[in-house]
Amino acid sequence: MPLHLTSEQRLDDGVLERGFTLGEIPGILWTPPSASTPVPLILLGHSPLGLRPMYPRLVARARRAAADGFAAATVELPGSGDRPRRAAAEQARADLRRAVEAGERVGDEIVDALILPLVDQAVPEWQAALDALLSLPELGGPVGYSGGVISIGVRLAVVEPRIVAAGLFAGSLVPRAIFEEARRVTIPLHVLLQWDDEGNDRQAALDLFDAFGSREKTLVANMGGHTGVPQSAGDAAARFFTRHLS
Amino acid sequence: MPLHLTSEQRLDDGVLERGFTLGEIPGILWTPPSASTPVPLILLGHSPLGLRPMYPRLVARARRAAADGFAAATVELPGSGDRPRRAAAEQARADLRRAVEAGERVGDEIVDALILPLVDQAVPEWQAALDALLSLPELGGPVGYSGGVISIGVRLAVVEPRIVAAGLFAGSLVPRAIFEEARRVTIPLHVLLQWDDEGNDRQAALDLFDAFGSREKTLVANMGGHTGVPQSAGDAAARFFTRHLS
Repeated sequence: MPLHLTSEQRLDDGVLERGFTLGEIPGILWTPPSASTPVPLILLGHSPLGLRPMYPRLVARARRAAADGFAAATVELPGSGDRPRRAAAEQARADLRRAVEAGERVGDEIVDALILPLVDQAVPEWQAALDALLSLPELGGPVGYSGGVISIGVRLAVVEPRIVAAGLFAGSLVPRAIFEEARRVTIPLHVLLQWDDEGNDRQAALDLFDAFGSREKTLVANMGGHTGVPQSAGDAAARFFTRHLS
Repeated sequence: MPLHLTSEQRLDDGVLERGFTLGEIPGILWTPPSASTPVPLILLGHSPLGLRPMYPRLVARARRAAADGFAAATVELPGSGDRPRRAAAEQARADLRRAVEAGERVGDEIVDALILPLVDQAVPEWQAALDALLSLPELGGPVGYSGGVISIGVRLAVVEPRIVAAGLFAGSLVPRAIFEEARRVTIPLHVLLQWDDEGNDRQAALDLFDAFGSREKTLVANMGGHTGVPQSAGDAAARFFTRHLS
Protein backbone atom coordinates (compact mmCIF):
# COMPACT_ATOMS: atom_id res chain seq x y z
CA MET A 1 0.00 0.00 0.00
CA PRO A 2 1.53 3.33 -1.05
CA LEU A 3 1.93 6.20 1.37
CA HIS A 4 0.33 9.53 0.42
CA LEU A 5 1.81 12.67 1.91
CA THR A 6 -1.01 14.99 2.96
CA SER A 7 0.75 17.86 4.76
CA GLU A 8 4.20 19.19 5.50
CA GLN A 9 5.53 21.67 8.03
CA ARG A 10 8.92 22.57 9.42
CA LEU A 11 8.91 22.73 13.26
CA ASP A 12 10.86 25.45 15.08
CA ASP A 13 13.77 23.09 15.78
CA GLY A 14 14.03 22.24 12.09
CA VAL A 15 12.30 18.86 12.33
CA LEU A 16 10.21 18.12 9.24
CA GLU A 17 6.71 16.93 10.13
CA ARG A 18 4.65 15.31 7.39
CA GLY A 19 1.13 13.97 7.62
CA PHE A 20 0.36 10.94 5.48
CA THR A 21 -2.32 8.38 4.79
CA LEU A 22 -1.82 4.72 4.17
CA GLY A 23 -5.10 3.67 2.60
CA GLU A 24 -7.57 5.00 5.13
CA ILE A 25 -5.11 5.13 8.00
CA PRO A 26 -3.69 8.54 8.90
CA GLY A 27 -0.16 8.85 10.20
CA ILE A 28 2.64 11.31 10.92
CA LEU A 29 6.31 11.16 9.97
CA TRP A 30 9.02 13.30 11.56
CA THR A 31 12.55 13.50 10.13
CA PRO A 32 15.64 15.27 11.50
CA PRO A 33 16.54 18.73 10.11
CA SER A 34 19.37 17.66 7.85
CA ALA A 35 19.16 13.99 7.06
CA SER A 36 21.59 13.55 4.19
CA THR A 37 21.88 9.76 4.52
CA PRO A 38 19.02 7.35 5.31
CA VAL A 39 18.34 7.49 9.05
CA PRO A 40 17.08 4.83 11.47
CA LEU A 41 13.37 4.94 12.32
CA ILE A 42 11.52 4.74 15.63
CA LEU A 43 7.86 3.74 15.45
CA LEU A 44 6.01 5.71 18.11
CA GLY A 45 3.32 3.62 19.73
CA HIS A 46 0.55 5.40 21.61
CA SER A 47 -2.69 4.77 23.42
CA PRO A 48 -6.06 4.26 21.71
CA LEU A 49 -7.04 7.81 22.73
CA GLY A 50 -6.22 8.81 19.16
CA LEU A 51 -3.44 10.69 17.40
CA ARG A 52 -4.98 14.13 17.94
CA PRO A 53 -5.12 14.13 21.76
CA MET A 54 -1.80 12.27 21.88
CA TYR A 55 -0.08 14.76 19.53
CA PRO A 56 1.72 16.91 22.15
CA ARG A 57 3.39 13.86 23.72
CA LEU A 58 4.10 12.29 20.32
CA VAL A 59 5.76 15.38 18.90
CA ALA A 60 7.92 15.71 22.04
CA ARG A 61 9.11 12.12 21.59
CA ALA A 62 9.67 12.72 17.86
CA ARG A 63 11.75 15.85 18.55
CA ARG A 64 13.93 13.87 20.94
CA ALA A 65 14.33 11.09 18.38
CA ALA A 66 15.27 13.67 15.71
CA ALA A 67 17.82 15.26 18.06
CA ASP A 68 19.41 11.81 18.36
CA GLY A 69 19.47 11.44 14.58
CA PHE A 70 16.39 9.24 14.14
CA ALA A 71 13.19 9.62 12.17
CA ALA A 72 9.95 8.83 14.00
CA ALA A 73 6.56 7.81 12.69
CA THR A 74 3.18 6.81 13.99
CA VAL A 75 -0.21 5.72 12.61
CA GLU A 76 -3.72 5.94 14.01
CA LEU A 77 -4.85 2.77 15.79
CA PRO A 78 -7.93 0.84 14.60
CA GLY A 79 -11.10 2.30 16.14
CA SER A 80 -9.36 5.53 17.25
CA GLY A 81 -9.46 9.11 15.98
CA ASP A 82 -11.62 9.33 12.87
CA ARG A 83 -11.30 5.63 12.10
CA PRO A 84 -14.51 3.54 12.30
CA ARG A 85 -15.34 2.24 15.75
CA ARG A 86 -15.55 -1.53 16.21
CA ALA A 87 -18.77 -2.50 18.00
CA ALA A 88 -17.09 -5.36 19.88
CA ALA A 89 -14.34 -3.04 21.12
CA GLU A 90 -16.89 -0.46 22.27
CA GLN A 91 -18.72 -3.22 24.15
CA ALA A 92 -15.48 -4.43 25.78
CA ARG A 93 -14.61 -0.85 26.76
CA ALA A 94 -18.04 -0.42 28.36
CA ASP A 95 -17.60 -3.73 30.22
CA LEU A 96 -14.18 -2.60 31.44
CA ARG A 97 -15.54 0.74 32.65
CA ARG A 98 -18.40 -1.01 34.45
CA ALA A 99 -16.01 -3.45 36.18
CA VAL A 100 -13.61 -0.68 37.22
CA GLU A 101 -16.42 1.53 38.53
CA ALA A 102 -17.88 -1.40 40.47
CA GLY A 103 -14.45 -2.05 41.97
CA GLU A 104 -14.42 -5.55 40.50
CA ARG A 105 -11.43 -7.45 39.24
CA VAL A 106 -11.30 -7.01 35.46
CA GLY A 107 -11.92 -10.48 34.06
CA ASP A 108 -9.70 -12.15 31.49
CA GLU A 109 -12.57 -12.24 28.98
CA ILE A 110 -12.90 -8.42 29.10
CA VAL A 111 -9.14 -7.94 28.64
CA ASP A 112 -9.05 -10.43 25.78
CA ALA A 113 -12.05 -8.83 24.04
CA LEU A 114 -10.54 -5.37 24.41
CA ILE A 115 -6.92 -6.06 23.48
CA LEU A 116 -6.57 -9.14 21.27
CA PRO A 117 -8.65 -7.87 18.28
CA LEU A 118 -6.80 -4.55 18.55
CA VAL A 119 -3.44 -6.34 18.38
CA ASP A 120 -4.62 -8.58 15.54
CA GLN A 121 -5.66 -5.60 13.45
CA ALA A 122 -3.01 -3.05 14.44
CA VAL A 123 0.12 -5.17 14.00
CA PRO A 124 -0.31 -5.83 10.24
CA GLU A 125 -1.14 -2.15 9.82
CA TRP A 126 2.11 -1.09 11.51
CA GLN A 127 3.95 -3.60 9.33
CA ALA A 128 2.32 -2.13 6.22
CA ALA A 129 3.29 1.33 7.41
CA LEU A 130 6.84 0.10 7.85
CA ASP A 131 6.89 -1.24 4.27
CA ALA A 132 5.73 2.14 2.96
CA LEU A 133 7.95 4.25 5.20
CA LEU A 134 11.12 2.29 4.47
CA SER A 135 10.53 2.79 0.74
CA LEU A 136 11.18 6.52 1.28
CA PRO A 137 14.81 7.31 0.39
CA GLU A 138 15.42 9.30 3.61
CA LEU A 139 14.52 6.36 5.86
CA GLY A 140 16.86 3.42 6.31
CA GLY A 141 17.04 1.07 9.22
CA PRO A 142 17.34 -0.29 11.76
CA VAL A 143 13.87 0.18 13.26
CA GLY A 144 12.89 0.57 16.89
CA TYR A 145 9.42 0.43 18.43
CA SER A 146 8.61 2.68 21.35
CA GLY A 147 5.75 2.84 23.85
CA GLY A 148 2.03 2.57 23.30
CA VAL A 149 -0.20 -0.41 23.99
CA ILE A 150 2.35 -2.90 25.30
CA SER A 151 0.58 -5.92 23.78
CA ILE A 152 1.03 -4.41 20.30
CA GLY A 153 4.73 -3.91 21.08
CA VAL A 154 5.07 -7.53 22.18
CA ARG A 155 3.43 -8.91 19.04
CA LEU A 156 5.46 -6.61 16.78
CA ALA A 157 8.66 -7.64 18.52
CA VAL A 158 7.83 -11.29 17.83
CA VAL A 159 6.64 -11.07 14.22
CA GLU A 160 8.52 -8.12 12.69
CA PRO A 161 12.21 -8.87 12.09
CA ARG A 162 12.98 -5.29 11.00
CA ILE A 163 12.36 -4.13 14.58
CA VAL A 164 15.67 -4.65 16.39
CA ALA A 165 14.93 -3.01 19.76
CA ALA A 166 11.81 -2.01 21.66
CA GLY A 167 11.14 0.46 24.45
CA LEU A 168 7.90 -0.63 26.09
CA PHE A 169 5.67 1.11 28.61
CA ALA A 170 4.11 -1.20 31.21
CA GLY A 171 0.81 0.55 31.52
CA SER A 172 -2.11 -1.36 30.09
CA LEU A 173 -4.06 -4.56 30.51
CA VAL A 174 -2.28 -7.57 29.05
CA PRO A 175 -4.11 -10.73 27.88
CA ARG A 176 -2.71 -14.08 29.06
CA ALA A 177 -1.97 -15.02 25.45
CA ILE A 178 0.42 -12.07 25.19
CA PHE A 179 2.44 -13.39 28.16
CA GLU A 180 3.04 -16.52 26.10
CA GLU A 181 4.13 -14.44 23.11
CA ALA A 182 6.46 -12.45 25.39
CA ARG A 183 8.54 -15.59 25.95
CA ARG A 184 9.33 -15.58 22.22
CA VAL A 185 10.66 -12.00 22.20
CA THR A 186 14.43 -12.01 21.80
CA ILE A 187 15.32 -8.40 20.85
CA PRO A 188 16.77 -5.99 23.44
CA LEU A 189 14.03 -4.41 25.56
CA HIS A 190 13.83 -1.30 27.72
CA VAL A 191 10.67 -1.41 29.83
CA LEU A 192 9.35 1.61 31.72
CA LEU A 193 7.11 1.01 34.72
CA GLN A 194 5.40 3.77 36.66
CA TRP A 195 5.32 2.30 40.17
CA ASP A 196 2.09 4.04 41.21
CA ASP A 197 0.30 3.88 37.85
CA GLU A 198 -3.37 3.85 38.80
CA GLY A 199 -4.39 2.07 35.60
CA ASN A 200 -1.73 -0.59 35.86
CA ASP A 201 -1.34 -3.86 37.74
CA ARG A 202 2.23 -3.63 39.06
CA GLN A 203 2.61 -7.36 39.67
CA ALA A 204 1.37 -8.16 36.16
CA ALA A 205 3.92 -5.71 34.77
CA LEU A 206 6.72 -7.39 36.73
CA ASP A 207 5.51 -10.83 35.60
CA LEU A 208 5.48 -9.68 31.97
CA PHE A 209 9.01 -8.31 32.32
CA ASP A 210 10.06 -11.67 33.77
CA ALA A 211 8.37 -13.53 30.90
CA PHE A 212 10.25 -11.79 28.07
CA GLY A 213 12.70 -14.16 26.42
CA SER A 214 15.21 -11.41 25.65
CA ARG A 215 18.70 -11.90 27.06
CA GLU A 216 19.09 -8.14 27.21
CA LYS A 217 16.18 -6.48 28.98
CA THR A 218 16.07 -3.60 31.44
CA LEU A 219 13.21 -2.54 33.69
CA VAL A 220 13.20 1.09 34.81
CA ALA A 221 10.63 1.83 37.51
CA ASN A 222 9.92 5.34 38.73
CA MET A 223 7.51 6.88 41.16
CA GLY A 224 4.34 8.52 39.99
CA GLY A 225 1.38 7.80 37.79
CA HIS A 226 0.90 7.02 34.13
CA THR A 227 1.86 10.43 32.78
CA GLY A 228 4.51 11.16 35.44
CA VAL A 229 7.51 9.59 33.71
CA PRO A 230 10.47 11.72 34.85
CA GLN A 231 12.82 13.42 32.44
CA SER A 232 15.66 11.10 33.48
CA ALA A 233 13.62 8.05 32.43
CA GLY A 234 12.92 9.61 29.04
CA ASP A 235 16.65 10.24 28.68
CA ALA A 236 17.45 6.63 29.60
CA ALA A 237 14.98 5.34 27.00
CA ALA A 238 16.52 7.64 24.38
CA ARG A 239 20.00 6.32 25.20
CA PHE A 240 18.68 2.77 24.82
CA PHE A 241 17.66 3.53 21.23
CA THR A 242 20.93 5.32 20.55
CA ARG A 243 22.81 2.19 21.69
CA HIS A 244 20.77 -0.11 19.49
CA LEU A 245 19.89 1.92 16.38
CA SER A 246 23.03 4.00 15.78
CA MET B 1 39.35 10.94 64.73
CA PRO B 2 42.09 12.24 62.37
CA LEU B 3 42.83 10.62 59.04
CA HIS B 4 46.42 9.45 58.42
CA LEU B 5 47.55 9.18 54.83
CA THR B 6 49.60 6.00 54.39
CA SER B 7 50.27 5.80 50.66
CA GLU B 8 49.88 7.81 47.50
CA GLN B 9 49.98 6.91 43.82
CA ARG B 10 48.88 8.51 40.59
CA LEU B 11 46.87 6.12 38.38
CA ASP B 12 47.39 6.08 34.61
CA ASP B 13 44.34 8.28 34.04
CA GLY B 14 45.68 10.89 36.45
CA VAL B 15 43.42 9.94 39.37
CA LEU B 16 45.21 10.35 42.71
CA GLU B 17 44.78 7.27 44.90
CA ARG B 18 45.69 7.61 48.57
CA GLY B 19 45.54 4.96 51.25
CA PHE B 20 44.64 6.14 54.73
CA THR B 21 43.83 4.90 58.18
CA LEU B 22 41.20 6.24 60.51
CA GLY B 23 42.22 4.84 63.87
CA GLU B 24 42.55 1.15 63.04
CA ILE B 25 40.30 1.29 59.99
CA PRO B 26 42.03 1.29 56.60
CA GLY B 27 40.51 3.18 53.71
CA ILE B 28 41.19 4.51 50.21
CA LEU B 29 40.54 7.96 48.76
CA TRP B 30 40.49 8.75 45.06
CA THR B 31 40.45 12.32 43.73
CA PRO B 32 40.15 13.60 40.14
CA PRO B 33 43.34 14.59 38.28
CA SER B 34 42.96 18.33 38.59
CA ALA B 35 40.63 19.23 41.42
CA SER B 36 41.21 22.94 41.90
CA THR B 37 38.02 23.56 43.87
CA PRO B 38 36.55 21.25 46.52
CA VAL B 39 34.73 18.42 44.76
CA PRO B 40 31.68 16.38 45.76
CA LEU B 41 32.35 12.99 47.32
CA ILE B 42 30.87 9.55 46.65
CA LEU B 43 31.26 6.98 49.42
CA LEU B 44 31.82 3.59 47.78
CA GLY B 45 30.06 0.85 49.70
CA HIS B 46 31.20 -2.72 49.12
CA SER B 47 30.61 -6.25 50.31
CA PRO B 48 32.17 -7.72 53.49
CA LEU B 49 34.62 -9.67 51.30
CA GLY B 50 37.19 -7.01 52.19
CA LEU B 51 38.82 -4.08 50.42
CA ARG B 52 41.63 -6.10 48.90
CA PRO B 53 39.50 -8.57 46.87
CA MET B 54 37.02 -5.77 46.08
CA TYR B 55 39.79 -3.42 44.88
CA PRO B 56 39.45 -3.98 41.10
CA ARG B 57 35.72 -3.17 41.17
CA LEU B 58 36.21 -0.27 43.60
CA VAL B 59 38.93 1.40 41.55
CA ALA B 60 36.80 1.08 38.41
CA ARG B 61 33.92 2.84 40.17
CA ALA B 62 36.32 5.48 41.55
CA ARG B 63 37.75 6.19 38.08
CA ARG B 64 34.23 6.69 36.74
CA ALA B 65 33.42 9.02 39.65
CA ALA B 66 36.63 10.97 39.00
CA ALA B 67 35.81 11.26 35.30
CA ASP B 68 32.51 12.85 36.35
CA GLY B 69 34.34 15.29 38.64
CA PHE B 70 33.78 13.52 41.95
CA ALA B 71 36.11 12.19 44.62
CA ALA B 72 35.42 8.68 45.92
CA ALA B 73 36.35 7.03 49.19
CA THR B 74 35.83 3.76 50.99
CA VAL B 75 36.75 2.16 54.31
CA GLU B 76 37.14 -1.46 55.38
CA LEU B 77 34.00 -2.93 56.98
CA PRO B 78 34.09 -4.26 60.56
CA GLY B 79 35.27 -7.88 60.61
CA SER B 80 36.61 -7.74 57.03
CA GLY B 81 40.14 -7.60 55.59
CA ASP B 82 42.71 -7.40 58.37
CA ARG B 83 40.19 -6.09 60.89
CA PRO B 84 39.38 -8.36 63.88
CA ARG B 85 36.66 -10.93 63.27
CA ARG B 86 33.55 -10.77 65.44
CA ALA B 87 32.71 -14.22 66.84
CA ALA B 88 28.95 -13.62 66.61
CA ALA B 89 29.25 -12.60 62.96
CA GLU B 90 31.33 -15.68 62.16
CA GLN B 91 28.68 -17.82 63.84
CA ALA B 92 25.89 -16.11 61.88
CA ARG B 93 27.83 -16.61 58.65
CA ALA B 94 28.25 -20.32 59.43
CA ASP B 95 24.52 -20.59 60.19
CA LEU B 96 23.72 -18.87 56.91
CA ARG B 97 26.00 -21.19 54.95
CA ARG B 98 24.45 -24.22 56.63
CA ALA B 99 20.90 -23.04 55.85
CA VAL B 100 21.73 -22.28 52.22
CA GLU B 101 23.51 -25.61 51.72
CA ALA B 102 20.58 -27.47 53.29
CA GLY B 103 18.25 -25.63 50.92
CA GLU B 104 16.37 -24.16 53.89
CA ARG B 105 14.75 -20.76 54.05
CA VAL B 106 17.21 -18.40 55.78
CA GLY B 107 15.51 -17.49 59.05
CA ASP B 108 15.02 -13.91 60.24
CA GLU B 109 17.21 -14.58 63.28
CA ILE B 110 20.18 -15.52 61.07
CA VAL B 111 19.71 -12.42 58.90
CA ASP B 112 19.38 -10.20 61.97
CA ALA B 113 22.48 -11.68 63.64
CA LEU B 114 24.50 -11.30 60.45
CA ILE B 115 23.44 -7.83 59.34
CA LEU B 116 22.22 -5.71 62.26
CA PRO B 117 25.48 -5.69 64.30
CA LEU B 118 27.38 -4.96 61.08
CA VAL B 119 25.10 -1.97 60.36
CA ASP B 120 25.31 -0.78 63.98
CA GLN B 121 29.10 -0.77 63.88
CA ALA B 122 29.76 0.25 60.29
CA VAL B 123 27.46 3.28 60.06
CA PRO B 124 29.19 5.35 62.79
CA GLU B 125 32.52 4.40 61.22
CA TRP B 126 31.42 5.69 57.81
CA GLN B 127 30.20 8.85 59.51
CA ALA B 128 33.57 9.28 61.26
CA ALA B 129 35.27 8.74 57.91
CA LEU B 130 33.04 11.42 56.44
CA ASP B 131 34.03 13.87 59.21
CA ALA B 132 37.71 13.25 58.51
CA LEU B 133 37.43 13.24 54.72
CA LEU B 134 35.41 16.44 54.55
CA SER B 135 38.07 18.20 56.63
CA LEU B 136 40.45 17.78 53.67
CA PRO B 137 40.52 21.00 51.62
CA GLU B 138 40.07 19.19 48.31
CA LEU B 139 36.79 17.60 49.37
CA GLY B 140 33.57 19.57 49.61
CA GLY B 141 30.08 18.30 49.35
CA PRO B 142 27.49 17.20 48.61
CA VAL B 143 28.02 13.54 49.44
CA GLY B 144 26.55 10.49 47.77
CA TYR B 145 26.58 6.89 48.94
CA SER B 146 26.91 4.10 46.40
CA GLY B 147 26.45 0.34 46.54
CA GLY B 148 27.62 -2.17 49.08
CA VAL B 149 25.58 -3.84 51.80
CA ILE B 150 22.17 -2.27 51.17
CA SER B 151 21.21 -2.24 54.88
CA ILE B 152 24.21 0.00 55.61
CA GLY B 153 23.11 2.31 52.79
CA VAL B 154 19.57 2.47 54.19
CA ARG B 155 20.74 3.35 57.72
CA LEU B 156 23.22 5.94 56.41
CA ALA B 157 20.51 7.52 54.27
CA VAL B 158 18.33 7.87 57.37
CA VAL B 159 20.88 9.13 59.90
CA GLU B 160 23.47 11.06 57.88
CA PRO B 161 22.16 14.40 56.57
CA ARG B 162 25.32 15.10 54.56
CA ILE B 163 24.37 12.24 52.22
CA VAL B 164 21.99 13.76 49.66
CA ALA B 165 21.57 10.87 47.22
CA ALA B 166 22.18 7.13 47.32
CA GLY B 167 22.71 4.52 44.64
CA LEU B 168 21.88 1.17 46.23
CA PHE B 169 22.44 -2.37 45.02
CA ALA B 170 19.66 -4.82 45.88
CA GLY B 171 21.78 -7.85 46.48
CA SER B 172 21.94 -8.93 50.08
CA LEU B 173 19.79 -10.17 52.93
CA VAL B 174 17.77 -7.43 54.59
CA PRO B 175 16.54 -7.62 58.21
CA ARG B 176 12.87 -6.74 58.82
CA ALA B 177 13.98 -3.79 60.97
CA ILE B 178 15.71 -2.25 57.95
CA PHE B 179 12.43 -2.33 55.99
CA GLU B 180 11.00 -0.09 58.71
CA GLU B 181 13.98 2.27 58.47
CA ALA B 182 13.55 2.35 54.69
CA ARG B 183 10.21 4.11 55.13
CA ARG B 184 12.08 7.02 56.73
CA VAL B 185 14.47 7.49 53.81
CA THR B 186 13.60 10.66 51.89
CA ILE B 187 16.67 11.35 49.71
CA PRO B 188 16.65 10.51 45.99
CA LEU B 189 17.48 6.84 45.39
CA HIS B 190 18.73 4.88 42.40
CA VAL B 191 18.35 1.15 43.07
CA LEU B 192 20.02 -1.51 40.92
CA LEU B 193 18.52 -4.98 40.90
CA GLN B 194 20.04 -7.93 39.09
CA TRP B 195 16.96 -9.90 38.09
CA ASP B 196 18.65 -13.31 38.28
CA ASP B 197 20.95 -12.62 41.23
CA GLU B 198 21.42 -16.06 42.77
CA GLY B 199 22.16 -14.61 46.24
CA ASN B 200 19.19 -12.27 46.22
CA ASP B 201 15.49 -12.61 46.98
CA ARG B 202 13.90 -10.68 44.10
CA GLN B 203 10.56 -10.21 45.83
CA ALA B 204 12.28 -8.87 48.96
CA ALA B 205 14.21 -6.43 46.79
CA LEU B 206 10.99 -5.20 45.15
CA ASP B 207 9.32 -4.91 48.57
CA LEU B 208 12.26 -2.89 49.89
CA PHE B 209 12.10 -0.57 46.87
CA ASP B 210 8.39 -0.12 47.53
CA ALA B 211 9.05 0.63 51.22
CA PHE B 212 11.46 3.54 50.65
CA GLY B 213 9.85 6.82 51.65
CA SER B 214 11.68 8.82 48.97
CA ARG B 215 9.48 10.69 46.52
CA GLU B 216 12.21 10.33 43.91
CA LYS B 217 13.33 6.73 43.53
CA THR B 218 14.20 4.68 40.48
CA LEU B 219 14.56 0.93 40.19
CA VAL B 220 16.75 -0.35 37.36
CA ALA B 221 16.56 -4.09 36.85
CA ASN B 222 18.78 -5.96 34.44
CA MET B 223 19.32 -9.55 33.51
CA GLY B 224 22.16 -11.55 34.93
CA GLY B 225 23.71 -12.37 38.27
CA HIS B 226 25.31 -10.36 41.02
CA THR B 227 28.42 -9.33 39.13
CA GLY B 228 26.72 -9.05 35.73
CA VAL B 229 25.60 -5.40 35.95
CA PRO B 230 25.73 -4.16 32.34
CA GLN B 231 27.74 -1.12 31.30
CA SER B 232 24.53 0.79 30.55
CA ALA B 233 23.35 0.35 34.17
CA GLY B 234 26.68 1.63 35.47
CA ASP B 235 26.29 4.64 33.18
CA ALA B 236 22.74 5.26 34.44
CA ALA B 237 23.93 5.16 38.07
CA ALA B 238 26.74 7.60 37.24
CA ARG B 239 24.26 9.98 35.62
CA PHE B 240 22.09 9.76 38.75
CA PHE B 241 25.00 11.06 40.84
CA THR B 242 25.81 13.72 38.27
CA ARG B 243 22.21 14.98 38.51
CA HIS B 244 22.25 15.11 42.30
CA LEU B 245 25.84 16.00 43.25
CA SER B 246 26.86 18.46 40.53
